[in-house]
Amino acid sequence: MDTIEKLINDIGALKSNAHKKDFLLTWEQSADELKQVLKIAETLKRMRGENIATKVFNSGLGISIFRDNSTRTRFSYASALNLLGLAQQDLDEGKSQIAHGETVRETANMIAFCADAIGIRDDMYLGAGNAYMREVGVALDDGFAQGVLPQRPAIVNLQCDIDHPTQSMADLAWLQEHFGSLEALKGKKIAMTWAYSPSYGKPLSVPQGIIGLMTRFGMDVTLAHPPGYDLIPDVIKVAKKNAKASGGTFRQVESMGEAFQDADIVYPKSWAPYQVMQQRTELLRASNYDGLKALEKQCLTQNAKHQDWHCTEDMMKLTKDGQALYMHCLPADISGVSCVAGEVQDTVFERYRIATYKEASWKPYIIAAMILARKYAKPAAVLAQLLTDAQPRVK
Amino acid sequence: MDTIEKLINDIGALKSNAHKKDFLLTWEQSADELKQVLKIAETLKRMRGENIATKVFNSGLGISIFRDNSTRTRFSYASALNLLGLAQQDLDEGKSQIAHGETVRETANMIAFCADAIGIRDDMYLGAGNAYMREVGVALDDGFAQGVLPQRPAIVNLQCDIDHPTQSMADLAWLQEHFGSLEALKGKKIAMTWAYSPSYGKPLSVPQGIIGLMTRFGMDVTLAHPPGYDLIPDVIKVAKKNAKASGGTFRQVESMGEAFQDADIVYPKSWAPYQVMQQRTELLRASNYDGLKALEKQCLTQNAKHQDWHCTEDMMKLTKDGQALYMHCLPADISGVSCVAGEVQDTVFERYRIATYKEASWKPYIIAAMILARKYAKPAAVLAQLLTDAQPRVK
Amino acid sequence: MDTIEKLINDIGALKSNAHKKDFLLTWEQSADELKQVLKIAETLKRMRGENIATKVFNSGLGISIFRDNSTRTRFSYASALNLLGLAQQDLDEGKSQIAHGETVRETANMIAFCADAIGIRDDMYLGAGNAYMREVGVALDDGFAQGVLPQRPAIVNLQCDIDHPTQSMADLAWLQEHFGSLEALKGKKIAMTWAYSPSYGKPLSVPQGIIGLMTRFGMDVTLAHPPGYDLIPDVIKVAKKNAKASGGTFRQVESMGEAFQDADIVYPKSWAPYQVMQQRTELLRASNYDGLKALEKQCLTQNAKHQDWHCTEDMMKLTKDGQALYMHCLPADISGVSCVAGEVQDTVFERYRIATYKEASWKPYIIAAMILARKYAKPAAVLAQLLTDAQPRVK
Repeated sequence: MDTIEKLINDIGALKSNAHKKDFLLTWEQSADELKQVLKIAETLKRMRGENIATKVFNSGLGISIFRDNSTRTRFSYASALNLLGLAQQDLDEGKSQIAHGETVRETANMIAFCADAIGIRDDMYLGAGNAYMREVGVALDDGFAQGVLPQRPAIVNLQCDIDHPTQSMADLAWLQEHFGSLEALKGKKIAMTWAYSPSYGKPLSVPQGIIGLMTRFGMDVTLAHPPGYDLIPDVIKVAKKNAKASGGTFRQVESMGEAFQDADIVYPKSWAPYQVMQQRTELLRASNYDGLKALEKQCLTQNAKHQDWHCTEDMMKLTKDGQALYMHCLPADISGVSCVAGEVQDTVFERYRIATYKEASWKPYIIAAMILARKYAKPAAVLAQLLTDAQPRVK
Repeated sequence: MDTIEKLINDIGALKSNAHKKDFLLTWEQSADELKQVLKIAETLKRMRGENIATKVFNSGLGISIFRDNSTRTRFSYASALNLLGLAQQDLDEGKSQIAHGETVRETANMIAFCADAIGIRDDMYLGAGNAYMREVGVALDDGFAQGVLPQRPAIVNLQCDIDHPTQSMADLAWLQEHFGSLEALKGKKIAMTWAYSPSYGKPLSVPQGIIGLMTRFGMDVTLAHPPGYDLIPDVIKVAKKNAKASGGTFRQVESMGEAFQDADIVYPKSWAPYQVMQQRTELLRASNYDGLKALEKQCLTQNAKHQDWHCTEDMMKLTKDGQALYMHCLPADISGVSCVAGEVQDTVFERYRIATYKEASWKPYIIAAMILARKYAKPAAVLAQLLTDAQPRVK
Repeated sequence: MDTIEKLINDIGALKSNAHKKDFLLTWEQSADELKQVLKIAETLKRMRGENIATKVFNSGLGISIFRDNSTRTRFSYASALNLLGLAQQDLDEGKSQIAHGETVRETANMIAFCADAIGIRDDMYLGAGNAYMREVGVALDDGFAQGVLPQRPAIVNLQCDIDHPTQSMADLAWLQEHFGSLEALKGKKIAMTWAYSPSYGKPLSVPQGIIGLMTRFGMDVTLAHPPGYDLIPDVIKVAKKNAKASGGTFRQVESMGEAFQDADIVYPKSWAPYQVMQQRTELLRASNYDGLKALEKQCLTQNAKHQDWHCTEDMMKLTKDGQALYMHCLPADISGVSCVAGEVQDTVFERYRIATYKEASWKPYIIAAMILARKYAKPAAVLAQLLTDAQPRVK
C-alpha cells in the first residue's frame, strides 16, 4: 500500500484541468483527471483512517438538490461536505417540477452566494437531468464572471439520466482496492448485466456509468440484457470508443450466462429500457398518471418474462473459478429477502454483502475528491498542507 | 473604497445600543445603529472576498422559524449563520398555526438552550407576525434572566407583517455600493411603486420596509399605487416623520409614471392592499377557505384593472436620463417570461438582472451583521480580532 | 460547587465500561457509569458557561432517526451534537414503517461511514423500539469489525418503548442540582404518578424511566396510578430490584393523594396502560385504523373517569411542607391553559414553570455526555485537554 506522501506526490504529477470543469460525465474527464479523483479519494480515506482532519474549508455551504428520493447518495454527499468542512443546505423545489430558463439562472445564483459545492440528483427525466446541471453551471459561470458570486461552486452530478459518476467512480475505487491497483484491472472481465426485478422504472445511469467508465482502463466489458432493454445508444458508442482507446474490449450479449462466463466481476442489476424511460418522461411531463400506470403494468408484464435473469449460485459457478466479485450499487432486490424473486439469490448476496458495503463506503471520499479537484488547481498542495498540519479529526 | 481597517475604525466610532435590542423594525434603530449594520456587513463581505474567515462562534446553533415558504431568505440566513460559525436547526411548527401564550414562552426556551440566533419569518397574518417575534423576545429575556438560558439569542426579523428589514437593509447596502456612499444617496429620488401581478396576497413588508428605511438618509421617496392599494397607515406616518428628520421628502402619488419622473431609482413591485390583508387574516384565522377563494377571485379581478402599472421601456424613459436603477427583491413577475403580463417588461428586467442579483447578494452579510451587532457590545473589537487572526476561509 | 478540575478528577476515578456499550437502558449501566454521565454533563455545562469550547470532533456526522414527532428532544440532540462538533443529518424513513432484517443491517452501515453518533427515537411500538436500536447496534458492530466503518458510532436512545434515558438522566441531573448533590437525594420521597389528560396513547417511557432510574440512588419511589394503568411488568421488577440494592424503597399505590403525602418531589404525568399500548401496537402493525379509532374512544372514556388525578394546589399541600418540587418532561397538559382539564392546575405549573425549564435544560449536556462516554475509554483525559486548550466558544 502506498504511503500518503506517495499518493500526494502522484497526484501532483498528474496533468489535470479538472478545476476548470464540473464533474458531469466520466467520459468528459481525461484518464489523468479520473486517476486524480481516485487518488485524492484514497488520500482522504487514509487520512481519516489515521485521524487526520481533512477540513479545507473553515466555512462555506454545500447545497444539495435532490429531485428524486435518496438515502445512500444523500448521506454520502453529506459526509463528503462534512469531511471538507462545508455545511449542508438542502434546496427542496418539489420533485415533480422541471425548472428552466430564468428560474434556474436566478435560483442558481440566489443559493450560491456562500456556496462552494452544489450536488444535484436529477434522474427522472430522460434528456433533462444532465442538461439541467449544465444550465446551472452556465448560470454560475455568469454569476461569478459578473461579480455576483465571490466563488464558483463545484457542481457534482449525484446521478442523472445519462451517468452516475459518483457511483461508478466509487465502484472503480473499490475494484482498485480489491484487485490491488488500477493497473491490475487491465484485462479483467466485468459483466454488467440486466437482472430481473419486480419493480419498474429503475434509472439507466448505473449500467451506463459502468460501461462508460470501466472501458477506460483496459478492462474487458460485457453488457448483457434481454432484447429490448437497450441503454441510450450514444453511451454505447462512448463505451466502444473508450474500449478501443484503452486497449480493452466492449461487447454486447443477450444472455446473462454468456456474460458471466469466466467473468472476474459481475454487476447484475435491473433497469428500464431507454425507450420506456422516454415514454415515461413524456407522460410525466404531461402529468398523464393513467398513462404512467398503464406503462408500469405493461413493463412489469414484460419484465416477468425474464425472471431467469437471476444471479444464482449456478450462475456464479460460470464465472472465473466460480469466484467472480459480485457488485451492486444497493439496495439490491434479493430473492426471498427483499422480494419474492429478484436480481440475486440470497446466499450469493450474503456472501458478498460486506463487499458491497465496502464498495459503497468509497462514495463519500469520491464525492469529496471531486469537489477538491474542481476547487483547487493544485490539489496536491492542499492535501500536503493537511498532512503537515495534522490536526486530529477526533481529539 | 475604504480599507477593512478604516471600516472597523468607523464601526468603533458609532454610538450603538444595538446589542440591547432585537432587529425587528428599522425605525426602532438609530441612524448610527443602521450605519453600524451596514459597515459590519461590508466588513464581513470584504473579509470573505479576501479569504479571511469570519467565524466568531466555535459552536452554537442558529434557529430558523419559517412560517411561510422561502428559498432566498432561507439560504441567506443559512449563509449568515455559516459565515459566523453557527449550525442551522429548523423549527417546523406547521405553517398555518398561530402559536401564542404558554406554547410560545415554553418553545422559545426549549429550542434556545444552545442557540445564539433565532431568525423568524412570519408574514401571513396582519397584526401577528411582528407581535409574535416580540413575544419570543420577552420569553427569551425571561429565560436568560432566570438562568434557564446561558445566553440571550439574537432575534432577526426575516420578514413580518410590518417590515422586512433584512431586505431593505440589503437594498440600502446595494444602493450605497452602487452610488458610492451613503452620503451620495442624499437627495436621490426613489420611486417605490405598486406594479401589476397576476397573483394576489403578496405581503406589504417590502414596500413598507423601503419607505420606512429610505426616508432615513435624506432621499426623496415617492410611494405610488392605484387608489385602494394602501399600506398600513402607521407605517406611512413613520415614513413622513423619518423624511422630515433626515432632510429628505416623502410623497404619495397615484400614478406609476408620476413616480418614475426623474427618479434615480425605481422599485416596481406588487402587493395586496392592507385592507385585503386584514380580511385575509380574519379568514385564515377562521379557516374559512371558501371565503379565501372568493377574496382571491375578487382581488385578481381588481388587480387586472391596473395592468398599466407595468415597468416598461417607455416607463423607464421617464426616469433620470432614462437610466434609473431598477430594483426588485426577487423573484419578479417578468412579462413574457415568468407570466404573460406582470410587473416588469422582459428587456428592462434583463438589463438590470445582474444588478438585482448583486442587490440580493448583500442579504447574507446584512443578516450576519445584525446578529453580530446584537451579540457584541463592541463589534469593532471582534472584527479587529478576526482581521488579526486572519484564518483563511479556504485553505 | 465543585471546580471543573475536581469534576474531571472525579470522572477519572470512576470505573466505567460505558465505552463498550450503547446507552439503551439506564439499568444496563452501573452506578459509576451513570455518575460518569452526570459528571461529564455537568463539566460540559460548566465549560460552556465559562465560554470554553467543548468541540472534541473536528468533523463527523451525528445521525438522527425520529420515528415519532419531536421538538424538544430533536433540539436537545442537535445541541448535543453541536457542542461536540458533529453536524446533524436526519434519516427520514417515514414514520409508520417498521424496518427490519436486511434493511436495518444495510441502512445502518450506509448512513454511518462518517458518523460518530446515531440518536434514535422509536417509541410507537411496544416490543419494537428498543429492539430496533439493538438491531442497529449489532449491524454497526459487524460493519466496524469487518472494516466497513472506520469508527463505531455511539447509539443514543432518544426514547423507546421501554425507557427514556436522556429524559430520566436529565431529570436526575436537575434533582442533583436542586438538592445540592446526588448524596442528598438519599431518602428523598419522589411520587411518580399518573395524571389525567384529555389525550391518549402517551408513551410509558417516562414513568418507566423514572422508576427505573430514581430507585438507583437510595430514593423512596412511589408509583401511583388508577387500577389498570399498569406499566410493563418487567420494568416494575427492575425498580423493585434497584430499590433493594440501593437502600431505597419502591412501592405502588392507587391514589395520587397517597403518593403525594410527604413527598419531596412529585412527577404527575399521563400515560396509556401498557395493555392498551400492546393493542395499539397490534392495530398499527395491521394498519387497522378503525380499530385504532375505537381504541382511542374507549381509552378517552376510561381516562375521563379519573379527572380527579389532578395536580392541584390542594394536592400539593399534602407534600412535605406543601413545598415538593414539581417535575414534568414537558409539554404538560395545564388545566385552563393548554386544555380545559389536564394534568396540572395552572397556578401550580406557573410556580414551577422555570424549574421545569431548568430540568429540561440538562438534556443537551446529558446527551453529549452519553456520546462522550461511549466514544472515549478515558473521557476525563479529553475533558482535561479541552480545559487546557481553553478555546473560547464565542470570540
